[in-house]
Amino acid sequence: MKPIQVGLLGIGTVGSGTFNVLERNQDEIRRRAGRGIEITMVADLDTERAKSVVGDKAKVVGDAREVIANPDIDVVVELIGGYGIAKALVLEAIAAGKHVVTANKALLAVHGSEIFKAAAEKGVMVAYEAAVAGGIPIIKALREGLTANSIQWVAGIINGTTNFILSEMREKGLDFDVVLKEAQRLGYAEADPTFDIEGVDAAHKATLMSAIAFGVPVQFDKAYVEGITKLTSTDIKYAEQLGYRIKLLGITKRTDKGIELRVHPSLIPAKRLIANVEGPMNAVVVNGDAVGTTLYYGKGAGSEPTASAVIADLVDIARMDGSDPAHRVPALAFQSSTLREAGQELPVLPMTEVVTSYYLRIRVADEAGVLAKITTLLANAGISIDAVLQREADEVGGEGSTQTDLIILTHETREGEMNKALEEIQKLATVLAPITRIRKEELN
Amino acid sequence: MKPIQVGLLGIGTVGSGTFNVLERNQDEIRRRAGRGIEITMVADLDTERAKSVVGDKAKVVGDAREVIANPDIDVVVELIGGYGIAKALVLEAIAAGKHVVTANKALLAVHGSEIFKAAAEKGVMVAYEAAVAGGIPIIKALREGLTANSIQWVAGIINGTTNFILSEMREKGLDFDVVLKEAQRLGYAEADPTFDIEGVDAAHKATLMSAIAFGVPVQFDKAYVEGITKLTSTDIKYAEQLGYRIKLLGITKRTDKGIELRVHPSLIPAKRLIANVEGPMNAVVVNGDAVGTTLYYGKGAGSEPTASAVIADLVDIARMDGSDPAHRVPALAFQSSTLREAGQELPVLPMTEVVTSYYLRIRVADEAGVLAKITTLLANAGISIDAVLQREADEVGGEGSTQTDLIILTHETREGEMNKALEEIQKLATVLAPITRIRKEELN
Repeated sequence: MKPIQVGLLGIGTVGSGTFNVLERNQDEIRRRAGRGIEITMVADLDTERAKSVVGDKAKVVGDAREVIANPDIDVVVELIGGYGIAKALVLEAIAAGKHVVTANKALLAVHGSEIFKAAAEKGVMVAYEAAVAGGIPIIKALREGLTANSIQWVAGIINGTTNFILSEMREKGLDFDVVLKEAQRLGYAEADPTFDIEGVDAAHKATLMSAIAFGVPVQFDKAYVEGITKLTSTDIKYAEQLGYRIKLLGITKRTDKGIELRVHPSLIPAKRLIANVEGPMNAVVVNGDAVGTTLYYGKGAGSEPTASAVIADLVDIARMDGSDPAHRVPALAFQSSTLREAGQELPVLPMTEVVTSYYLRIRVADEAGVLAKITTLLANAGISIDAVLQREADEVGGEGSTQTDLIILTHETREGEMNKALEEIQKLATVLAPITRIRKEELN
Repeated sequence: MKPIQVGLLGIGTVGSGTFNVLERNQDEIRRRAGRGIEITMVADLDTERAKSVVGDKAKVVGDAREVIANPDIDVVVELIGGYGIAKALVLEAIAAGKHVVTANKALLAVHGSEIFKAAAEKGVMVAYEAAVAGGIPIIKALREGLTANSIQWVAGIINGTTNFILSEMREKGLDFDVVLKEAQRLGYAEADPTFDIEGVDAAHKATLMSAIAFGVPVQFDKAYVEGITKLTSTDIKYAEQLGYRIKLLGITKRTDKGIELRVHPSLIPAKRLIANVEGPMNAVVVNGDAVGTTLYYGKGAGSEPTASAVIADLVDIARMDGSDPAHRVPALAFQSSTLREAGQELPVLPMTEVVTSYYLRIRVADEAGVLAKITTLLANAGISIDAVLQREADEVGGEGSTQTDLIILTHETREGEMNKALEEIQKLATVLAPITRIRKEELN
């Protein structure tokens, strides 16, 4: 069979990795795919850099539309990123009858419905294994490996930058700002780290996993997103004393009322495997009604790990190109004709409807009766307590201190009830600072 | 598209799970597969039990050949097990033009080449996700998720019985025999546990992973197989003091000279995720040159976890049935025309050629100069030492004891060299008992 011809849009970190791995492993990849996979054309604004990567093995152009217009190109790999030009190019490639591979989670989480619809109408594939958790084949696991299951929930460490920061904060007892600077110096965080540290990147990925787990459209606009910028090493330390680690999790869960879709810091029991995923590594836990709990772990970013996912998509396409679209794996795991409409049947729940347990840190006056007042207010709201850690005032505020920290772990409750209870507790005269509230997940 | 019709051969634990999960999740499975998947016929010697599971939803027969002869059946699921009648039936089903799904690792590890060849000639699929690590989609990860990579090695906890036993031995400090009885009582070990505790089951699975990782035929006869029956809680305890856990690993590794394929107890650094996989759970670590180290974790056995894998195969087949065989995923990951012949290019290495590091426990007379003699013999063999743990004689043999344990961790060496060195050390008059030697893997 003739080689499949690939055009690359953008040849930065991931593009170079894709080119190099395809070159290095071309023999094994051909033996697996049943045909060669060749990058024959590359578009990049920086044509000089592009030429330094590909030499004379591919034609380098400055205009991405030249790649799309080339009738010999079977697959367009979009590695530009962002919502702007990338969206236009992906839609143009589809319209030109090209299969598309992309690592662009932002694009798919926001404009996925439009893109997948266009691809289905044109009979081409849009593959995006590299968009979630880098080299870990989690899209394939969800979409093909666990098809027997009614997926119950998915929870993942899907942003390496924030996991690196949280690991360093815990291991070295350092504050967020200090570690962020170190992460930037080491290349684990970008100059503008907003998308990572505010949880937006993780929410893009959780949105994609939610869609393929439950057969619903991508609904990034409905996701609850909270980053790690307000986390303190104090809370990380207290959590550890209680047997928990704090991780930024992307969570999507099926409930009777609808779907939870949320990104926020979470306490996880330290004994869970995922609690021990440290540094920039990623891991995703998937719970299905038949299989139980499964976990997938690996590098979530970087040149060659991400290239590994891009090329796996290319091999899938090389294997399926020319076949009847009815015989391919559907882009969103479920056949497009059977996707639920947004909001129908399984709506994304507002955060007040989410049921979870909580870690509360309350700075209080060190006097008798404080704990009783707080626990009474929680009890009145129907919230039951799992554990209490009361620190000695001296340890918290230094010798002679009159303030202390009260740490409370609750059982599960609706977030709406918790909000109301916290409002009441915050009003107490003996509560001296804004209450810290971090959600807690058992993940078993 | 009309539903795909499935015939089940054997409806014990996994068969019942398959039937029940397909019934329970039929709507979601149909939405994923693009067509219904229906078990319309079941063969089991115990027709009464079979009827009690399937009711009037499938025809129950006592003769498996009736299922194979039924022209309406598209896929035959073989859940009988063993090499005998199962082999004949699988080959007959293929000859009759049926796709085959099987959970039978023993059959495929020993007779896979013959079976896959027959299937390729007939243009039908043979799928076996359930044969390795139960519900974990590890075959799919190796065969499709990591196709970009030159796989470097695979190492897995792929037998739940032995992992349960080792976990209990470590946590409770109990001996092998005691825990085996407990495992049998709890249903984690069979009445005849030989295949599990002697490592044969793990070797079957490692053989399959080796073939699809490296594009070589299944070569169970070349595997090195060592079980856990000789492990003592003493070694588990010493390993822990040195920062390691002992696990029964199935390992296959690519080297310049060939492929390692071996099952034996191994020390693993306690900080690795896989070292923390406890009880009957399974996990497989895969290292690829592009993706780095990835890990896959979940339930390795049981009715519905295994059914999850069987049904994932059925969905794959439902999606690909009727398509050109050239567009399907090859059974052994590599296109059958490109599989290496056994022994060619990447031969399975004899154990003496395997390079690894070691844990040695040597019972010695508690007198001056013993350590020097032993380390000299190791040094003469070119084996360098990583760490030594010398126990006080009193702790080992009770007060007044004149014997003690010398624990040595070595750096990497060829097993052939280690065998020679151990022979010399064993001859020393001050060495009082047979030396315990356990291999050690870093898995990073």
